[in-house]
Amino acid sequence: MAATKGGLVVAQSGGPTTVINSSLCGVVQEAMNHDCFTDILAANNGVLGVLNEELFDIRKEEPGTVEALRRTPSAMAGSCRYKLKGMETSREDYERLLEVFKCHGVHYFIYIGGNDSMDTADKLGKLAADTGYELTVMGVPKTIDNDLAFTDHCPGFGSVAKFLCASVMEAGRDTESLYTADTTTVFETMGRNAGWIAAATGLAHRGKEDAPHLVYVPEVAFSVDRFVDDVKRTVDEIGRAFIVASEGLVDEKGNYVAEQAGQFGKDAFGHKQLGGVSETLKSIVEEKVGVKCRYCKPGTAQRNAMHFASLTDSNEAYMAGQAASRKAAEGTSGYMVTLVREEGEEYRCSTGLAKLSEVANAEKKLPREYMNEAGNHITDEMRKYASPLVRGEVPIEMGKDGLPVYARFVKHFVEKKCPAWSGGKK
Amino acid sequence: MAATKGGLVVAQSGGPTTVINSSLCGVVQEAMNHDCFTDILAANNGVLGVLNEELFDIRKEEPGTVEALRRTPSAMAGSCRYKLKGMETSREDYERLLEVFKCHGVHYFIYIGGNDSMDTADKLGKLAADTGYELTVMGVPKTIDNDLAFTDHCPGFGSVAKFLCASVMEAGRDTESLYTADTTTVFETMGRNAGWIAAATGLAHRGKEDAPHLVYVPEVAFSVDRFVDDVKRTVDEIGRAFIVASEGLVDEKGNYVAEQAGQFGKDAFGHKQLGGVSETLKSIVEEKVGVKCRYCKPGTAQRNAMHFASLTDSNEAYMAGQAASRKAAEGTSGYMVTLVREEGEEYRCSTGLAKLSEVANAEKKLPREYMNEAGNHITDEMRKYASPLVRGEVPIEMGKDGLPVYARFVKHFVEKKCPAWSGGKK
Repeated sequence: MAATKGGLVVAQSGGPTTVINSSLCGVVQEAMNHDCFTDILAANNGVLGVLNEELFDIRKEEPGTVEALRRTPSAMAGSCRYKLKGMETSREDYERLLEVFKCHGVHYFIYIGGNDSMDTADKLGKLAADTGYELTVMGVPKTIDNDLAFTDHCPGFGSVAKFLCASVMEAGRDTESLYTADTTTVFETMGRNAGWIAAATGLAHRGKEDAPHLVYVPEVAFSVDRFVDDVKRTVDEIGRAFIVASEGLVDEKGNYVAEQAGQFGKDAFGHKQLGGVSETLKSIVEEKVGVKCRYCKPGTAQRNAMHFASLTDSNEAYMAGQAASRKAAEGTSGYMVTLVREEGEEYRCSTGLAKLSEVANAEKKLPREYMNEAGNHITDEMRKYASPLVRGEVPIEMGKDGLPVYARFVKHFVEKKCPAWSGGKK
Repeated sequence: MAATKGGLVVAQSGGPTTVINSSLCGVVQEAMNHDCFTDILAANNGVLGVLNEELFDIRKEEPGTVEALRRTPSAMAGSCRYKLKGMETSREDYERLLEVFKCHGVHYFIYIGGNDSMDTADKLGKLAADTGYELTVMGVPKTIDNDLAFTDHCPGFGSVAKFLCASVMEAGRDTESLYTADTTTVFETMGRNAGWIAAATGLAHRGKEDAPHLVYVPEVAFSVDRFVDDVKRTVDEIGRAFIVASEGLVDEKGNYVAEQAGQFGKDAFGHKQLGGVSETLKSIVEEKVGVKCRYCKPGTAQRNAMHFASLTDSNEAYMAGQAASRKAAEGTSGYMVTLVREEGEEYRCSTGLAKLSEVANAEKKLPREYMNEAGNHITDEMRKYASPLVRGEVPIEMGKDGLPVYARFVKHFVEKKCPAWSGGKK
């Protein structure tokens, strides 16, 4: 059956990653192989770009720029955190999306993002079907948090894991060489609800001396007493402790550890401290273990560290993007591309499909058995799961000035044809 | 004149750097070429290792381990923050150092470190001379802070600059793609008294869009009003602001900005906040500019980032170490090796010498003319100064597991021959 001819809009959403542009590259380069896509447009800043009718023509970019997506971090088409809710609340927004698509003859929409984006794509597809507008919607998974269901892992996760492992190894050597003065270090990773990222740094611990010595994740309720015991025992045993903690640690009652300022967040002068988990844990260590504690919080640098990205991750992100375009061209709609780990000793990965509606309403936490019984380090199962994902390095372009060269789109916007959006600003 | 025959002790001190091991490698490999060094010993954890008589024989390490120093971050012989003061206060410590040297026939001491280490080496050399013990002392500069006088720049600085530039570029792309939600980011660098490191990230700003858009250093008194104006103007102009701030920012009265908790360090609930500069600036931005602000604080990871180290820096660190051994073998004593930038358009660097006593008592702040008049970004002079120092990448060894391989010494300790140290613990 010949596929419907029409324009394709691709958009990026949510927190950027090191390889979300690699997925965009896969979408675009594969789309160029299919005649059904009469246009290949990108939305400027996710669905906001559709709502605002800010669409730019990717085929007018230099081919080198499209290729450079594979070695440029963060969302080059722009991203957003604009959330479309249920059809009752956000119907106008969904209708506006369709309106813009209609104005531009767009019959294909590929959304690269997380749960919320899959939900948006799903609802949009259903509204189109209900109103008799032909629209193929496909999703490409993206999240450093690695908490999407139905996919073995998520593009973006392997690269944040690889970079953080290197940083933990390196900062760990700092604590190792200066343990007589700076005895402990807390290293805070992203991961608000799931501990995949913090757990992945456990790979850096190849042997007893290697950081991290302790790893804490949101899936294991945090106990100050157990934490203090862990740190004391580690300092007794090897003279120091390097601690990785997920930003989303919660106590037995489900309260975020970082918010327990009244109880533990006081400095030497009795001032209350608020901030991240790292500051809270630093306070606990200095007060209750009685040794100096430093902290590192790489923040958004961790999810964009293209200078040390995982080639496996980048290639899989590309492959997921390609598959979305290929499946769309074949007429498949309403699915997110998944990454499937094939059976066998050697790691191999292919793509599969999961229904958008199912992905949207599920999340995948770190399985308890990926953490040891004490809940303070990873098991071999986690090691086996995560290790293949950090292999290989993405070659980047280096400038004469000794710094990376990352690309930008020129963004040739297509002429606006619809009435202005009456909704939100930006 | 034939050089005195005797043992060499080399030690590393203070905060580790990405390339301090490269200097150690230079010291050791050059020392192997000179018969005057009857032993090549390293002190375990700086002068603490001498005081505790913990000396290990580097020639008993695998040659591969010595070579791996050039691609292993942090201080592989161990470092310390043990401070020897003036001769009146710390005479016993200085005498203990000489005692240990005498027990082991050590007539050469090379100390890789910053101001304090140069002071220690200087005083030790003078005490030896006063007491008639033949001791050649040489210093090798080491500090990411780049604040040692008499040397054009310091080994360690170029690598922290290179890594932070990449991180700032990358986190900057995050803010760029998500400006509609996460409009500003503060990125906190090390540099307690001098702004060299923060200023060096200015290199990443190749054009108007590129982070960092604003750079603040301790050499320019920090004004909250000017800061708020800067951020507002930047957000107005380009829709976002990426701000780099040195941890050591001070206000007009010389007070650390990070300690002004009472005035600006309150969160939405009126809780006082203490912590780094980044948290303070985040509070100011959110309160007075009214946009969301994220922060990154890479901490000790920044000074050990061997996975993206400057080859120029690493080679110069090695060269400085080599020069120290060569000069010591030639009978030069009481000097620190300096890096000398040669005249001419193309960057070239050779080594020179500066008296330990003079280095010990001087520091080199960022010249005011390296910052623009507004004090919120660097000038072309800073750019010209810092740019050559971040060029090239140090090749590292990658394991099959996709992570770097860093080395460790086995540490074959020589037999103790002196009475136990009666002084401080560790």
